[in-house]
Amino acid sequence: MLAKFHWWIASQALPAKFKSMQIAFGLEDLIAIVTPQAVRGSTPETITAIASLESATAKDLSFLGNPKYRAAVSDSAAGVILLPADFAGDPKPGQCWLLVENPSAALALVCARIEAQLWPQPAPGIHPTAVVDPSAIVALTATIGPLCVVEAGVTIGEGSHLQAQVFVGKDSRVGDACWIAPHVYLATDCRVGDRVRIHAGSVIGSDGFGYEFVQGRHTKVPQVGGVVVDDDVEIGANVTIDRARFSQTHVGQGTKIDNLVQIAHNVRIGKHCLLCAQVGISGSTILEDYVVLGGQSGVGGHITLAQGTKLGGGAALTYDTKPGDFLNGSPAVPYMLERRIAVLQKRLPDLFRQVGKHEEQLEVLKKTSAS
Amino acid sequence: MLAKFHWWIASQALPAKFKSMQIAFGLEDLIAIVTPQAVRGSTPETITAIASLESATAKDLSFLGNPKYRAAVSDSAAGVILLPADFAGDPKPGQCWLLVENPSAALALVCARIEAQLWPQPAPGIHPTAVVDPSAIVALTATIGPLCVVEAGVTIGEGSHLQAQVFVGKDSRVGDACWIAPHVYLATDCRVGDRVRIHAGSVIGSDGFGYEFVQGRHTKVPQVGGVVVDDDVEIGANVTIDRARFSQTHVGQGTKIDNLVQIAHNVRIGKHCLLCAQVGISGSTILEDYVVLGGQSGVGGHITLAQGTKLGGGAALTYDTKPGDFLNGSPAVPYMLERRIAVLQKRLPDLFRQVGKHEEQLEVLKKTSAS
Amino acid sequence: MLAKFHWWIASQALPAKFKSMQIAFGLEDLIAIVTPQAVRGSTPETITAIASLESATAKDLSFLGNPKYRAAVSDSAAGVILLPADFAGDPKPGQCWLLVENPSAALALVCARIEAQLWPQPAPGIHPTAVVDPSAIVALTATIGPLCVVEAGVTIGEGSHLQAQVFVGKDSRVGDACWIAPHVYLATDCRVGDRVRIHAGSVIGSDGFGYEFVQGRHTKVPQVGGVVVDDDVEIGANVTIDRARFSQTHVGQGTKIDNLVQIAHNVRIGKHCLLCAQVGISGSTILEDYVVLGGQSGVGGHITLAQGTKLGGGAALTYDTKPGDFLNGSPAVPYMLERRIAVLQKRLPDLFRQVGKHEEQLEVLKKTSAS
Repeated sequence: MLAKFHWWIASQALPAKFKSMQIAFGLEDLIAIVTPQAVRGSTPETITAIASLESATAKDLSFLGNPKYRAAVSDSAAGVILLPADFAGDPKPGQCWLLVENPSAALALVCARIEAQLWPQPAPGIHPTAVVDPSAIVALTATIGPLCVVEAGVTIGEGSHLQAQVFVGKDSRVGDACWIAPHVYLATDCRVGDRVRIHAGSVIGSDGFGYEFVQGRHTKVPQVGGVVVDDDVEIGANVTIDRARFSQTHVGQGTKIDNLVQIAHNVRIGKHCLLCAQVGISGSTILEDYVVLGGQSGVGGHITLAQGTKLGGGAALTYDTKPGDFLNGSPAVPYMLERRIAVLQKRLPDLFRQVGKHEEQLEVLKKTSAS
Repeated sequence: MLAKFHWWIASQALPAKFKSMQIAFGLEDLIAIVTPQAVRGSTPETITAIASLESATAKDLSFLGNPKYRAAVSDSAAGVILLPADFAGDPKPGQCWLLVENPSAALALVCARIEAQLWPQPAPGIHPTAVVDPSAIVALTATIGPLCVVEAGVTIGEGSHLQAQVFVGKDSRVGDACWIAPHVYLATDCRVGDRVRIHAGSVIGSDGFGYEFVQGRHTKVPQVGGVVVDDDVEIGANVTIDRARFSQTHVGQGTKIDNLVQIAHNVRIGKHCLLCAQVGISGSTILEDYVVLGGQSGVGGHITLAQGTKLGGGAALTYDTKPGDFLNGSPAVPYMLERRIAVLQKRLPDLFRQVGKHEEQLEVLKKTSAS
Repeated sequence: MLAKFHWWIASQALPAKFKSMQIAFGLEDLIAIVTPQAVRGSTPETITAIASLESATAKDLSFLGNPKYRAAVSDSAAGVILLPADFAGDPKPGQCWLLVENPSAALALVCARIEAQLWPQPAPGIHPTAVVDPSAIVALTATIGPLCVVEAGVTIGEGSHLQAQVFVGKDSRVGDACWIAPHVYLATDCRVGDRVRIHAGSVIGSDGFGYEFVQGRHTKVPQVGGVVVDDDVEIGANVTIDRARFSQTHVGQGTKIDNLVQIAHNVRIGKHCLLCAQVGISGSTILEDYVVLGGQSGVGGHITLAQGTKLGGGAALTYDTKPGDFLNGSPAVPYMLERRIAVLQKRLPDLFRQVGKHEEQLEVLKKTSAS
């Protein structure tokens, strides 16, 4: 599906510095990175880009990530191709196949190498323009970038990096090896574990949306709980996670959250969940481990999504689920039923017509029968 | 529904400073805060946390917020319970019941006390790293936090607090006793009333989305109006409110807006409305007072939602409503009808089968009748 | 539809400086700006505000933007009215009609003049509080506002304006005459063309949401591509555009993106598309030119929306389209079919009742026929 792209469109004249983004891997470099189970063929080329099978040239690395593109391998001009270990056949002359257990995972290893090159770990230290309270404890190996604000009582762990313009509120704690992008707001009394990434503009610890209706006005219920984000969580850009009314809003270990997701107060999310972009979760709802929520889906308040529940994109769920449930639609129903309803809905005009015809035929038959 | 949580999970070792978040209220303190109509029983314990009825221990404050949990009161081990004034029965030994008009509102009073403790009003003054134009008028009791930008002609009222990294554009005005969180953008020529709270990352006064299609291109229609936010409004995190094409976009007194809500140009919102997370309102639409929009619901442009209109979560509305209408679904229909349709949709496969059977039976009957 | 508003509500006492926002155009000024095809009547008044036809007074400029308000022209008290060139009739005494090809476009010209007055181009230069890497190349005519961060290797073009608190990452490039609002994050290795506007809080170049599921954990796939935004694009507030896994995410020339839109990694958007607020586009999807996506609509991954495809508000699309398709609903179907389904759904209770009645009648007829 991916058309051919080098790092930057080759057809446009680019200043020299953009060209420096290009990668340059010899075949030995790639073998060292992906440690293939087998190597077939060889290429003398230096690999300078990644491209899809159809669009790759001899200077590109490509991969078979999805079996349905299997046929494209024999036609591909790629210099190096990452393939599943059981892939049959032989490369073209001047082409090299690297046979690996999981080609996508192998490509990820190559990309990780590129990533480290593009975004090397910055030197530790506190930028002189950052405003860091003297009572904050910042690890010597941590980096506080320009124009960050770190309030009193904060702890920043080993090797963590606040890129720039980040805000960390009073008494909050960031673990080790975290990366926090510009314009992130981490409120007072929140805790972030180790190896957490938070992308730009996300808000962790805003007030929950809680009011009591008293004498015609919505009176604020103060939200004095916190937010706890466990280890290995990744949070996308412009996400919002509300602090709890009391106790805490909780994001479990290894959970990944896409952009523009809303997590209300007192929500508890288990381990290794996936929340796609623009998902909304209402207050006090519980997601057990390995829940997957499709983009733009919505989950009502005070319900429990059992382990492994999957929700399709745009689905709206307002009731408890059973482990492994796969639901779709708004309101959500079992996936296969939703697919069936979607097909039948398109035939509603026919059905109404047919039932109208039956009405007429029945009238005729009743008359005939009565006569 | 809320499981037991102390401020922080007790089972995890926490550094001493996190423990300092714990509350400590004697029974007399709580009585002074909630001024109960009656007190039954007593406890010698100091209350150090808030917990749900099921999970509370003798050191916890609990409450009956929802009548359906009534049965949980007699089993609760909470030290102090907030109950409705007409609640019958007696506390356990060593337990105290505080009978109040509205237990949730009473709990809110306790939380407000905690809030004031956690987040005391900062000292007034302008942080040396803030960039404040000399022509801006900042009240002597206001606080401008680090790295804020306050442009020319701005007014900041008494006791208002711009926390950090806030931007207030030329000639805008912030009233008294406002709290504006980090990374909020308040554009040029906007007005915010008194006691307004704006959470992190919200954007007030971005351009409306207006273009004229001229010769194959979308030509920008400059958006030269403003935004007016009245008193006692609360705006969540990462909300966007566009400035008007001309005149103003308006948010009425006491209205509460949750996270990630979009309010387009020239929208006028009445008093005491509730807009849940991820709601979108299209241009020039009018919400009268006390309108409630469920999470992820969408409202079309140039329509009027009459006073007290309620829209369910995820609903999509494109027509004017009558006062008190409660609508649901996409496209929105009256709530009860939507509930009925949702049930019948699941039976569509059966219905199609049944009508198919009728078709066959009618064929047979027609033949019989004809013979 | 627009009620009468001056720049600020006249009924409220305003400090003098707010009044200075008022416009002041003589009739000759307006004629010079809109260059009408014909002028009918005249007014001695100085025009100080824009208002709708119904609410305008002699000191207001009004316009007929939508033919359905045609009848309101004769009743309008506006001092000056912008009308289509073929509009018949004559103004009231003391009223002036300016006949133009496109009254909305003419009004836009007036607003553009006001805009230039309200927000004059700032003086070029780098604010002393901005943190600009010495290796960045900033055009002499560009303006870098307070508290911006510009990293190494960045280029900022002629006349471009980073308003305040903006972040531009390493090796990124901003073209000429761009305007970038506060709290925008432009990541490493991204490119923005000329005359691009990016509103507050938007995030360009956050990581795509890509993981491989390995041994029970979601393992990050590094996202080492970039984002390219072509000339004349406008991006709303709190938008998120992810960088590509490899190659680039691409927004084509002249495309306009509303607030809170999510664009996933490797999406390619054509020229002159319109993406309304809260739209979400999944990874690797292609939008050809002139695609229009209604508010809150969602588009699945790895599909192609052919040129001129239109999607209604809230629609959810998961398959390829044909040029000019107009689709609606969730899941999306052709617009007219969706409208028909919406009507028939409301009649489902009747249909079920009718089919139940047929069932009974058939039973009777079968018995009669059998006897």
